[in-house]
Amino acid sequence: MSDQQVRVTFEPHGRAVSVLSGTKVLEAAAQIGLALETPCGGAGTCGKCRVQMTAGAPKPSAADRKVFSRQQLAGGWRLACQAAITSPAVVRIPDASLFANQHRILVEAQKAGADQVVPAVRKIYVELPRATLDDDAPDLLRLERHVGAVKTDLELLRELPSLLRAGDFKGTAVVTDHRLIDFEPGDTSDRCCGAAFDIGTTTVVGSLMDLRTGDDLAVASCVNPQVSFGDDVLSRIKHSGSCDDCLEELRAVILDAVEQLMDQMCAEAKVAREHVYELAFAGNTTMEHLLCGIEVTQLGQVPFVPAHARGLMLRAAELGVAIHKRGAAYVFPVIGGFVGGDTVAGVLATRLAEQEGPSLLVDIGTNGEIVVAHQGKLLAASTAAGPAFEGARISCGMRATRGAIEKVVFQPSGHGTPAVPGGDVRCGVIGEAPPIGMCGSALVDLAAELLNAGIVTSEGRLLPPEELPAGLSEGLRRRVSRRADGQTQFLVTGGGESQVTLTQRDVRELQLAAGAIRAGIAILLKQAGLTAADLSCVLIAGAFGSFIRRNHAQRIGLLPAQIDHKRIHYVGNASLSGAKWALVSTKARRQAEELARGTRHVELSRDADFQTQFAEAMIFPH
Amino acid sequence: MSDQQVRVTFEPHGRAVSVLSGTKVLEAAAQIGLALETPCGGAGTCGKCRVQMTAGAPKPSAADRKVFSRQQLAGGWRLACQAAITSPAVVRIPDASLFANQHRILVEAQKAGADQVVPAVRKIYVELPRATLDDDAPDLLRLERHVGAVKTDLELLRELPSLLRAGDFKGTAVVTDHRLIDFEPGDTSDRCCGAAFDIGTTTVVGSLMDLRTGDDLAVASCVNPQVSFGDDVLSRIKHSGSCDDCLEELRAVILDAVEQLMDQMCAEAKVAREHVYELAFAGNTTMEHLLCGIEVTQLGQVPFVPAHARGLMLRAAELGVAIHKRGAAYVFPVIGGFVGGDTVAGVLATRLAEQEGPSLLVDIGTNGEIVVAHQGKLLAASTAAGPAFEGARISCGMRATRGAIEKVVFQPSGHGTPAVPGGDVRCGVIGEAPPIGMCGSALVDLAAELLNAGIVTSEGRLLPPEELPAGLSEGLRRRVSRRADGQTQFLVTGGGESQVTLTQRDVRELQLAAGAIRAGIAILLKQAGLTAADLSCVLIAGAFGSFIRRNHAQRIGLLPAQIDHKRIHYVGNASLSGAKWALVSTKARRQAEELARGTRHVELSRDADFQTQFAEAMIFPH
Repeated sequence: MSDQQVRVTFEPHGRAVSVLSGTKVLEAAAQIGLALETPCGGAGTCGKCRVQMTAGAPKPSAADRKVFSRQQLAGGWRLACQAAITSPAVVRIPDASLFANQHRILVEAQKAGADQVVPAVRKIYVELPRATLDDDAPDLLRLERHVGAVKTDLELLRELPSLLRAGDFKGTAVVTDHRLIDFEPGDTSDRCCGAAFDIGTTTVVGSLMDLRTGDDLAVASCVNPQVSFGDDVLSRIKHSGSCDDCLEELRAVILDAVEQLMDQMCAEAKVAREHVYELAFAGNTTMEHLLCGIEVTQLGQVPFVPAHARGLMLRAAELGVAIHKRGAAYVFPVIGGFVGGDTVAGVLATRLAEQEGPSLLVDIGTNGEIVVAHQGKLLAASTAAGPAFEGARISCGMRATRGAIEKVVFQPSGHGTPAVPGGDVRCGVIGEAPPIGMCGSALVDLAAELLNAGIVTSEGRLLPPEELPAGLSEGLRRRVSRRADGQTQFLVTGGGESQVTLTQRDVRELQLAAGAIRAGIAILLKQAGLTAADLSCVLIAGAFGSFIRRNHAQRIGLLPAQIDHKRIHYVGNASLSGAKWALVSTKARRQAEELARGTRHVELSRDADFQTQFAEAMIFPH
Repeated sequence: MSDQQVRVTFEPHGRAVSVLSGTKVLEAAAQIGLALETPCGGAGTCGKCRVQMTAGAPKPSAADRKVFSRQQLAGGWRLACQAAITSPAVVRIPDASLFANQHRILVEAQKAGADQVVPAVRKIYVELPRATLDDDAPDLLRLERHVGAVKTDLELLRELPSLLRAGDFKGTAVVTDHRLIDFEPGDTSDRCCGAAFDIGTTTVVGSLMDLRTGDDLAVASCVNPQVSFGDDVLSRIKHSGSCDDCLEELRAVILDAVEQLMDQMCAEAKVAREHVYELAFAGNTTMEHLLCGIEVTQLGQVPFVPAHARGLMLRAAELGVAIHKRGAAYVFPVIGGFVGGDTVAGVLATRLAEQEGPSLLVDIGTNGEIVVAHQGKLLAASTAAGPAFEGARISCGMRATRGAIEKVVFQPSGHGTPAVPGGDVRCGVIGEAPPIGMCGSALVDLAAELLNAGIVTSEGRLLPPEELPAGLSEGLRRRVSRRADGQTQFLVTGGGESQVTLTQRDVRELQLAAGAIRAGIAILLKQAGLTAADLSCVLIAGAFGSFIRRNHAQRIGLLPAQIDHKRIHYVGNASLSGAKWALVSTKARRQAEELARGTRHVELSRDADFQTQFAEAMIFPH
């Protein structure tokens, strides 16, 4: 089930993260919020993202050899955008390599330092004096003298006298959110875990964390199994109302996915389920409702009203997730029917509201969520991008996991990798495996390269062989063919049965997805009284498997061309980052509630300009 | 199952109560906190307890005829201590008949007036505007605009969208303790009930109440079925630890009793279980722990430590009582291992802490709980009286229900009632039924009369026929006989198989019970720096079936002889009164918590004088 994971530790920050083998250092650093300087967009040409790998350094790349001396290479210096992590690694990041605005992005969520890690769960080892006639305080009061006043479930109260006496009044009190949830024999204060989840429409990602330190212990992801009931939010809503048990069916399958990810992560980190005390979930409004088993029919009808908006502090058992039997679960607050907890989590994790100057967050998933922060105000909207960027609805699409092509570069010379003779397309594949499909970042790359090469027109036509431009290399020309169904296709890699291709229909899906997001950005900027050129900071979030190369994102019209590309930063899965932050910080939860309440929800379709903008955005920029 | 209940309404207070047929008006009034002047102790001789029964007046008694004119009798004037309620009645109480300190006793708990009735449960009928694009507030927020911010169980949140829409956003929100527990179709705000329970070691009493008005709708009582596991607290504790399921077994039987009383009361008042939203329970510490299923082993071992002391705010479902599926249950705070929530409830109901001058509350049950209030301080103790006053461990004892003799008077003349020829013993029987046993108040009467007649000595010997004093009437003399086992017995009433008798062993039980309580009073007064003569107010609580005649209580040594008998007042089942008050008043719950925390628990057995006092108290006063 699990792709091979390797662990990488970043110095001097001391934070560690587990990543898929083959992940670039730049990516891994982004996952824990360390953004590096990459003026060239990760092409390996600018030499700004220098790091020193004191353990687990891969063979130097050609780009490394251009930038570093032999002595430096021997000392483990590499370009973070080139070096893949294939074995446990230790990476030192010099201050000069950190993105200048680094301290303002994802800092709170991720930075080392126990001062930010104040989770709701506390474990306190106590040795209580035994009761005597002169000190006949009730059991609970005796414990409260050491742990502070707590609420107590009747279930635990029933056992408390024998739990206390079994350990001769010595043991570890477990308190979450001022609620006593257990008294464990002996000192178990070193076993205190939690798990954060990003519940996407297409992809579910989990992170198992050590609540004492805020460290990642394991990460895991899978396809949201609800996709079998439809690949977008509305089809799930429709299914939920189509039979008496359909809502429960949707709830059961996502719960099952969460359980499986928990299994994977707990096995990998060797953590017992009963030492997991708290969960945090961020997802769009429909995903959160479905996870909780809350009716969603009203979310599919004008005016798309959620059942509730505040974050939910639940018992994990109410959700049905098997962690500690009295463990807790936090579900993020939502902003509106289609701007959910994942957006709140993203705004929280990126500290968007605190960026200097007008700032934009675009979280690209099956829905594209867009947030503009300007002069202390937050505007948020959602646009139905479709799941193309997560690899769905694309003929050879897949999510960012082992075997996924995550990067595509058209080389001027003719040495393609792999397989196609005379090929001039170079692919990066996740997990050092044979390529079996493309994830979102590869699609963006490929579309941009095809536009640049003139193989795809600005109207989105993938030209058939007979219409290809005259100057095209033979290598590229040979990749274009007509399929049996009449569609043009472009061969990315492979031969025979394991071909990875892009079809005309795939290009249309990308057009729709990118156009929806760009139109959304345009409307939201207009409503905020801004233009794209005003933006001082643009943060791109999403689980593409790689950071989307910003020049390519602009080339396909996902982002407005007017944005200075140096102001665009990839911040990874910001929803998961926010969920993780909320897991380890009760302060972050309070901030999440404030953000959700303080953000104005813009219904894009109500803007008179939306249809025009959308039609315009469907054309790829020239 | 249920004894016949009749309803009586008191004017001008407007409060109603259901009582067993045959209950004296004086008793019924005491049950809702209206204490009448009874300088003669209810003997029908002083004529102070005058009331006018505008409906349901019984035939005038001989005492009535002495006090009232023919015209007054025709107008329904009766002596409250004589008039039994046998059909639905309306009773007007003139101010002059109210006990002078009335306004200071049980006032809060019982008095009419909506200002005191502020229950945790609120029902609010709302008609919400439907959601529109311009008003797309989430469902819960839409409701909160009308009912205030509420917590919501996930269970309800799951259904909230369809509940709101099913009634087109019109319906009745049910909120308890700031928790939204339901949204009922239509306007159901007139159906809002709760039930209060006194869980005694021997007797369980419940009261179904209308939470809007604080009115009683029905009352019911039964023997605590745990008596089959032992008739005192310690034997229950011992049983709980004797097998793995024994604690659960004890919990299950008391729960079953509560359920049966709920059945009776709901049937009588024609109230649906789902319209009962809240429960309140007062009991001694062990009874409350067992009801909640909390371990009690530690309560049976020095230093007798409870699991917890604060009141519990639970879901009724956690306890297992079937009211509204998300209904709540309040369990009283306790003071110590043997001074429990029933004592707190009694102190609350009687406002003992606010009485002028040094005051004493004695709650006579299987345990006798004693509280002294003096200069703002409260001292409480418990003494193991045994269940004699509740009719248990007495050969012909029974609890105060239909067929129980509740009053015994030795008449100077020889016309006994019923059956014994030439008898000179007169009995009052509950429910106008043939007598089948004696309840606590009758035992006190009988013992006092036997002492007065010289048939029982101050050492507690029930004299055999040959030792009876010379001046004894023939009627009384003929009632004394020797049983086959050698014990002396006194025939109270009946002949043949339905005899009711008192045996030597019964007298010993009474001696123990009264002695334990009097010794407890003595120790507690000593620790408070008081003597019995200092007391300005003595309140006697308990479910005897009748108020204990105070001169008789002093005669048998239950209360110190030094107390001015005018300062002794019977306050009925104060534990139930306190539970009822807590049910209809959240303020009362806060007071209960303060009282429990502020009362000092005195462990009688640790006082060096206790054994001496107990030995002395075993002797009946001369």
